[in-house]
Amino acid sequence: MIKKEKDIIYGRHPVVDAISSGVSLDKVIFQQGVRGPLEKEIRLLTREANIPLQVAPKERMNRLTRANHQGVIALISPIPFYKISDVLPSIYERSEQPLIVVLDGVTDVRNFGAIARSAEVCGAHALVVPLKGSAQINADAMKTSAGALAKIPVCRENSLVNTLDFLQQSGLSIFASSLEASQSIHQLDWTVPLALVVGSEGEGISPSMVKGSDELFIIPQQGTTDSLNVSVATGIMLYEAMRQRHF
Amino acid sequence: MIKKEKDIIYGRHPVVDAISSGVSLDKVIFQQGVRGPLEKEIRLLTREANIPLQVAPKERMNRLTRANHQGVIALISPIPFYKISDVLPSIYERSEQPLIVVLDGVTDVRNFGAIARSAEVCGAHALVVPLKGSAQINADAMKTSAGALAKIPVCRENSLVNTLDFLQQSGLSIFASSLEASQSIHQLDWTVPLALVVGSEGEGISPSMVKGSDELFIIPQQGTTDSLNVSVATGIMLYEAMRQRHF
Repeated sequence: MIKKEKDIIYGRHPVVDAISSGVSLDKVIFQQGVRGPLEKEIRLLTREANIPLQVAPKERMNRLTRANHQGVIALISPIPFYKISDVLPSIYERSEQPLIVVLDGVTDVRNFGAIARSAEVCGAHALVVPLKGSAQINADAMKTSAGALAKIPVCRENSLVNTLDFLQQSGLSIFASSLEASQSIHQLDWTVPLALVVGSEGEGISPSMVKGSDELFIIPQQGTTDSLNVSVATGIMLYEAMRQRHF
Repeated sequence: MIKKEKDIIYGRHPVVDAISSGVSLDKVIFQQGVRGPLEKEIRLLTREANIPLQVAPKERMNRLTRANHQGVIALISPIPFYKISDVLPSIYERSEQPLIVVLDGVTDVRNFGAIARSAEVCGAHALVVPLKGSAQINADAMKTSAGALAKIPVCRENSLVNTLDFLQQSGLSIFASSLEASQSIHQLDWTVPLALVVGSEGEGISPSMVKGSDELFIIPQQGTTDSLNVSVATGIMLYEAMRQRHF
């Protein structure tokens, strides 16, 4: 699909300028097989700016624009990205108990949007997504979120495991749902400063993230259907946090 | 789209036979402008069997099958439909407190499937849908429900207002969410026999249904986004019911 011109930036100088001047980018796509100083500069700049870099064959890039892209295209993001280390202090400064939602591999755009919506409605302070392997924040995600993605900060982090470490050192408890947990969601104290880890629908939370968690819990079930939809389950967890915190 | 042969029944005798012998049908489509005894018979049979009847131009019907359909086509449903008056006694016989979910105009197939999934997981006994204006129960709905639609009975009723009357006379309280309610979801007693009415995402619950309800409630919000996704909100209501009933 040809992207609308306003959604992309192409060409060596324009892309380098965009990254350097802090334009919010979904990702940068670099042409396979191109070597030399441009490649090095783009690699360095995207790494420093925490922007995903993808290498793609020329034919795929030509499908994004008919213009002369010179081997490099950047996709503009509809929202800015933050760092959790910048967002966290401002929550404490407002004397609030942090409630952070960490999305570990949620790739379905509609689930992502619905989770953002529930998070904003239930008073969560930020979403954290990994640099690679998260849903693209596109028009569909914005629409499903009912505008929430324009209100709640989305933090993009290189390593979610390191992010959990940072959050723990900052005084947050890490909560994660696990089918092997023995305690129920309602037995936990959701009023403490906390980060809730949410996994992908198919795979669940990755083992390294489970290992880095302080509290594992289940949503007990009455029926026999194989668990809840990930956005419904996350909505229930955020509701429980809101119920305990504010009702 | 041409339907797979196994999903449809066409022709006068085969359709009449299917209705008479109780085959579960999503709806019957009758050709515009055809008059006479067949029309009368089909109208009578579908009304008696509680099957939606739709009148469509010949061209639209020809798109469903290339065969000679003789002006009448029936779409087979992947699930059987029940009557709430048949389902309710068996719940009481098992000494359980009924928890029924009434869907008032939920037309999005994915939302419908996700609600069915949450209902089954949280221990609801049945779904009730109107004869007209509900999501089609197709392969997408079955998939989104993760199999729940094959486990929880779906009741199809001609008039939801009459259904609420019947449920009240049978001892159930009618719960409905309303943005104008003054009490919160957690202030209600969800352990009583009850029917939960869920509205469409755009329109909410219809005024006649609100009027027929015993308890109106809101899910209070912290954020500023315009309410929750309907399947997430329903998941939270069903979770609250399960939490109070079983935890």
